[in-house]
Amino acid sequence: MTGPVLSDETSGPVPAVCPYYHEAIELIGKRWTGAIAEALMPGPMRFSAIADAVPALSDRLLSNRLKELEGAGIVARHVIGEAPVRVEYELTDKGRALRPALDSVRAWAREWMRD
Amino acid sequence: MTGPVLSDETSGPVPAVCPYYHEAIELIGKRWTGAIAEALMPGPMRFSAIADAVPALSDRLLSNRLKELEGAGIVARHVIGEAPVRVEYELTDKGRALRPALDSVRAWAREWMRD
Repeated sequence: MTGPVLSDETSGPVPAVCPYYHEAIELIGKRWTGAIAEALMPGPMRFSAIADAVPALSDRLLSNRLKELEGAGIVARHVIGEAPVRVEYELTDKGRALRPALDSVRAWAREWMRD
Repeated sequence: MTGPVLSDETSGPVPAVCPYYHEAIELIGKRWTGAIAEALMPGPMRFSAIADAVPALSDRLLSNRLKELEGAGIVARHVIGEAPVRVEYELTDKGRALRPALDSVRAWAREWMRD
């Protein structure tokens, strides 16, 4: 075993985990939402392009997840032009700021999840 | 809007999201598992200390999550000594390698989740 032994007897109360972290990890970890944010990193995309980038995800589920990400301020939905309109989805500043976190998770995954 | 427009018409098929990433983000994002891994970062801990560090988590749920993390190779369980034995949980190398990813998620959370 490595590292200091932290037990409830020797070190007193352990600080609680940051609630923001907790909320964030659950937000980006929710089924498919991390993958959708990752797919949107290069720039604005139409619904169909996002669907192509995240296989095995039904249109209905993708639509729900996009609404959730919009509600969380991570994705913005743009309606462009008049009939026929074009709808595009784009990461907000908050969403783009996720890049280092998502890159870091991906690096870990590539090294450790192949087994 | 910023960044290049990637639509299904102009840029052809979008590469699929890395499946390892996808699996990883779901693993660490599953309710409470990220918080438990975070709590274990300083070193081996007894069950009760982990429970103190992750509030609002029942012992039964914590026990289940620790078994899952053990199954995923992220946590190791050690039984130390003879009766009365002491049981400690510790991150494996794979679990400790999560640190940059978890730190990065926490940094994003602190900056963007307070609103």
